[in-house]
Amino acid sequence: MKRIKLEIAYDGTDYCGWQLQPGLPTVEAQINKALSALLGEEITVIGASRTDSGVHARGNVAVFDTETRIPPQKICLAVNQRLPEDIRVQSSIEVATDFHPRKVKCRKTYEYRILNRNIALPMERLYSNFVYYSLDMGAMQRAAGYLVGEHDYKSFCSVKTQVKDTIRTIYQLSVRKEEDIIIISVTGSGFLYNMVRIIAGTLIEVGRGAIPPEHMTAILQGCDRSLAGPTAPPQGLTLMNIDYITDNIE
Amino acid sequence: MKRIKLEIAYDGTDYCGWQLQPGLPTVEAQINKALSALLGEEITVIGASRTDSGVHARGNVAVFDTETRIPPQKICLAVNQRLPEDIRVQSSIEVATDFHPRKVKCRKTYEYRILNRNIALPMERLYSNFVYYSLDMGAMQRAAGYLVGEHDYKSFCSVKTQVKDTIRTIYQLSVRKEEDIIIISVTGSGFLYNMVRIIAGTLIEVGRGAIPPEHMTAILQGCDRSLAGPTAPPQGLTLMNIDYITDNIE
Repeated sequence: MKRIKLEIAYDGTDYCGWQLQPGLPTVEAQINKALSALLGEEITVIGASRTDSGVHARGNVAVFDTETRIPPQKICLAVNQRLPEDIRVQSSIEVATDFHPRKVKCRKTYEYRILNRNIALPMERLYSNFVYYSLDMGAMQRAAGYLVGEHDYKSFCSVKTQVKDTIRTIYQLSVRKEEDIIIISVTGSGFLYNMVRIIAGTLIEVGRGAIPPEHMTAILQGCDRSLAGPTAPPQGLTLMNIDYITDNIE
Repeated sequence: MKRIKLEIAYDGTDYCGWQLQPGLPTVEAQINKALSALLGEEITVIGASRTDSGVHARGNVAVFDTETRIPPQKICLAVNQRLPEDIRVQSSIEVATDFHPRKVKCRKTYEYRILNRNIALPMERLYSNFVYYSLDMGAMQRAAGYLVGEHDYKSFCSVKTQVKDTIRTIYQLSVRKEEDIIIISVTGSGFLYNMVRIIAGTLIEVGRGAIPPEHMTAILQGCDRSLAGPTAPPQGLTLMNIDYITDNIE
């Protein structure tokens, strides 16, 4: 028995998120179906990150166990033949049989894209959040600085979750502009439910002048969701990659 | 009576091209419907460029005549409220009543995007042509150089057209790379049917070593469609903008 780790890219537009939900189209359901058909075994993957409906990925991670004799690196191309075009496995490697993608320490990087111009661009509508009012990049960058480090991010967590420990570490949080797209890039030890979208929504409030950058400290310390900005819409968010310190048995 | 010029961006994925076709979804049909509803007049636009099914635009141009008292610049935002999200008018200005977008001299710029990596990326599938084998950028750039200037581009024109005069001028044709996207950018006085997609298909053949760059001269001189490469698929193509020397009456 081997455990295989997949890196998976997908366009979340047409899916009700990653996680299996009976009767609904999900990325996990597509992956399970394609792997089961390819390998002739009943496969159920364990995903690293349960992205929400409409959220995209460049490098989500999932593992599964198999008896197959197909070389691990070749599973990637073979399974892509059985997947719809909006899901593409980027790599497949063998990992230790006890490697669990939600239990091993990792760094996750997300990007949140904001299309900031007067009029929307159709080709960006599924992959960015359109904001027509002008945003102060300097203010957003200063606010981002306050959020880096180890903090209790309870104010940046959806009240719809039951999680007790809301302390996380953000290693980097940057705001840059490429033509009329503002890209918020954040790397952390893990993220609370909706955390990146609430950070993005809060930085947008800062950008339009509704919240001063230096209020970030009080928002963090208040540990109250109502202090932060709104949850920015899902289509701007992409899970870029998940770095595990050790995952390859080779 | 005023003539209004629109710059229009659209995602061509779900349309059977620009031009009206009874019973089929086209960009022109959507624009006519939205303008007619907004202005309370029966509007039929004249388009500058009849893009094909699946081809995108950042700045196609269309004009129409109206009796409206809405200020020309405001039509843009008002009509967008009545358009689907995959079409967005970028600007609206008044032009001379005899301005015809296909008869006035202009420079059109197209971009053709090639996703060049081992495995496709789902979020690029509708906006690029995926090529998994490696492409020689230098060879493509040298080949592009031969195509610049005033030439008979009959070899780069679909045989499905009846056009007699196949002489055109290409002002610039560049090939650049941004991460794993190769972008072919071409500006010309006008383009024959499928010309940009045949240029792209030919440059891809050059990139993979099937045609030497210096063969471009013989391909041009041969005036025979079968000498050039295949027509690259539509989703990689975007009409970026159309520059008219004079169009604004102000």
